[in-house]
Amino acid sequence: MALREDALELHRSFKGKLGIVSKVPVLNSRDLSLAYSPGVAEPCREISKWKECVYDYTNKGNMVAVVTDGTAVLGLGAIGPYAALPVMEGKAVLFKQFAGVDAFPICINTSDIDKLVETVKLLEPVFGGINLEDIAAPACFEIEERLKKELEIPVFHDDQHGTAIVTLAGLINAAKVVNKRLEDLHVVINGSGAAGIAIAKLLLQIGISNMIICDTKGAIYEGRTEGMNGIKNEIANLTNRQKTAGLLEQVIAGADVFLGVSAAGALTADMVRSMAKDPIIFAMANPDPEILPEIALEAGAKVVGTGRSDYPNQINNVLAFPGIFRGALDVRATEINDAMKIAAARVIAELISDEELNGNYVIPRPFDERVVPKVAAAVAITAQETGVALMGKEGKA
Amino acid sequence: MALREDALELHRSFKGKLGIVSKVPVLNSRDLSLAYSPGVAEPCREISKWKECVYDYTNKGNMVAVVTDGTAVLGLGAIGPYAALPVMEGKAVLFKQFAGVDAFPICINTSDIDKLVETVKLLEPVFGGINLEDIAAPACFEIEERLKKELEIPVFHDDQHGTAIVTLAGLINAAKVVNKRLEDLHVVINGSGAAGIAIAKLLLQIGISNMIICDTKGAIYEGRTEGMNGIKNEIANLTNRQKTAGLLEQVIAGADVFLGVSAAGALTADMVRSMAKDPIIFAMANPDPEILPEIALEAGAKVVGTGRSDYPNQINNVLAFPGIFRGALDVRATEINDAMKIAAARVIAELISDEELNGNYVIPRPFDERVVPKVAAAVAITAQETGVALMGKEGKA
Repeated sequence: MALREDALELHRSFKGKLGIVSKVPVLNSRDLSLAYSPGVAEPCREISKWKECVYDYTNKGNMVAVVTDGTAVLGLGAIGPYAALPVMEGKAVLFKQFAGVDAFPICINTSDIDKLVETVKLLEPVFGGINLEDIAAPACFEIEERLKKELEIPVFHDDQHGTAIVTLAGLINAAKVVNKRLEDLHVVINGSGAAGIAIAKLLLQIGISNMIICDTKGAIYEGRTEGMNGIKNEIANLTNRQKTAGLLEQVIAGADVFLGVSAAGALTADMVRSMAKDPIIFAMANPDPEILPEIALEAGAKVVGTGRSDYPNQINNVLAFPGIFRGALDVRATEINDAMKIAAARVIAELISDEELNGNYVIPRPFDERVVPKVAAAVAITAQETGVALMGKEGKA
Repeated sequence: MALREDALELHRSFKGKLGIVSKVPVLNSRDLSLAYSPGVAEPCREISKWKECVYDYTNKGNMVAVVTDGTAVLGLGAIGPYAALPVMEGKAVLFKQFAGVDAFPICINTSDIDKLVETVKLLEPVFGGINLEDIAAPACFEIEERLKKELEIPVFHDDQHGTAIVTLAGLINAAKVVNKRLEDLHVVINGSGAAGIAIAKLLLQIGISNMIICDTKGAIYEGRTEGMNGIKNEIANLTNRQKTAGLLEQVIAGADVFLGVSAAGALTADMVRSMAKDPIIFAMANPDPEILPEIALEAGAKVVGTGRSDYPNQINNVLAFPGIFRGALDVRATEINDAMKIAAARVIAELISDEELNGNYVIPRPFDERVVPKVAAAVAITAQETGVALMGKEGKA
């Protein structure tokens, strides 16, 4: 358990991972009179005259709230806002290290949807964007929906859209490897939580229509009554148009793609063998995937991805969210729309040339330094093209 | 207007004053697996088992929220939470630069007391202390009162208590200069906002009982009906036991001390001349004091302090709040009580030796490096002595 001990030691010795710094010098009375009283009154006056220049005189435009209620933290479940803090600090660290975005953990001590939405709205003066994190489904859908409607800064639930973007990026390249057209893929998604639903919606957007989503009760289909909720009913009307019923082991037969956002062991070698020729398997459950890559490959899988760094094709959100927010903040996007997400997925996929592309390399590695600037640029340009950017890339529009 | 332009330029060129940093390296997959998934699950598990160890594994124990609703920002009034952000960022910068305390601006977009209190309570998982800032009286009193009661982390309204502590420190030394006993001083406080009320309460605690507080309607006394509120009624029962009525120009006659937390021009040379021998004048209105020091001195004042850095005896909160929170956080104090405030005032005063002490030097300068460690130590020890510290100075109790 070296990882366990090392991780505890790291967190203990640094007492958390995140710190605040001053970007300005405060070494003498003159500095103090500029950064604080009386000089600070000047930017205050300017902002009180014209609210928008809060982006010129404060850090708002580069500050993202990493918001959670601690109801679905990693694979640990509803461990609460205190125990969620190390993850939110970690996320903030990644925002900074990967994209120069300042991010701050906002762990809210309630799982009441109304209170959570109101709290985030009341904090909006400080933040240029909202990254929702580790909030359980289905509450996460309503929370994101309401915040997107009621705020004019981008709101992004990373467990949904970050995962969906990186999954799509990997799938674009995997389809090339197996020589199938993306739109023709028959996809089975196992897991109907935040990630599963978001993946389904994004794949629909790019024209993949032959898709079945399973939860623990099997395929979700229009007319199913057991274990449904608002979002599952919505998705039942958008996917699985043949209204196929049955457990995963039945509906997986003949599929081209398995996308797992569920739990360890959900996919067996026999199920892989029942799939169409050259199956694509993204077994993204963390820390233990739905099927181990060696077993999937032995059963005939052609491309296998997981969430893990010790196997090829790590489907890691860090490929998306830093660049997504970097790009959105750079042009003061008011939202992160589907076109921006798809643009991000496409540039992530394009970083791997046709010559490099193979079953063990369909997605760039997390520390590939080309990723963030490419994603940021694509997101910023697409925000402008789709009319949700308040600024040009290099300053005011 | 060099100050104005320089202050705007500073804020514009840095786009705000505050940034987030990672305290841990994230340079490769191993780093990532420790600071984020999967390693981060380990501290999460520990905290979910025993909430208190959030202080061991996260930055909570060193993180202070600088909370405002923007209703009383500097001398600018109710300019709102957006325009207040430069001040809150500045405060956070000072916390870090002076005392190594991480602080983060929380500008809340409401002035509804219930909502503000609830928002701060909901954010408590992230913070080790709450610094209230620039919240108008009398709402600030209720907000602080309720948060102190309902939270187990220290809550401190700096405009009240920071000002009171530094004023008391200066007064201790000023009394020595004029050779009067502190308890015998006849004090007139002009201003019944957050600072005036807090100064009065702290002076009462150290035995100064001959005290009159004035607002714009004159002396506050028991039985006055015009322009009163809950807190003024409370203070009317604690001060001015002779129930003296009248405007400042009347009640100032014969006083030893004028403490101004009001507005420019409130004190005239004639009023100073009407005071007792060797008057002490702290004219702390910002940016323009109640009386200019040269005028007060010419009228006979023996000790004059202001809020300004370009005159002697700058009564600056930066002498108090960084060390106060440093000390409180170091021992996990659950509150900042009067004993801790008085201890802080005494050590600030004691930094000036009897040899150095004179009318132009009754309070240390803001950049005196001895201040923060002295204040922090005094606060920490007093927290332990008064039973509000959860930890020893050097670790767990």
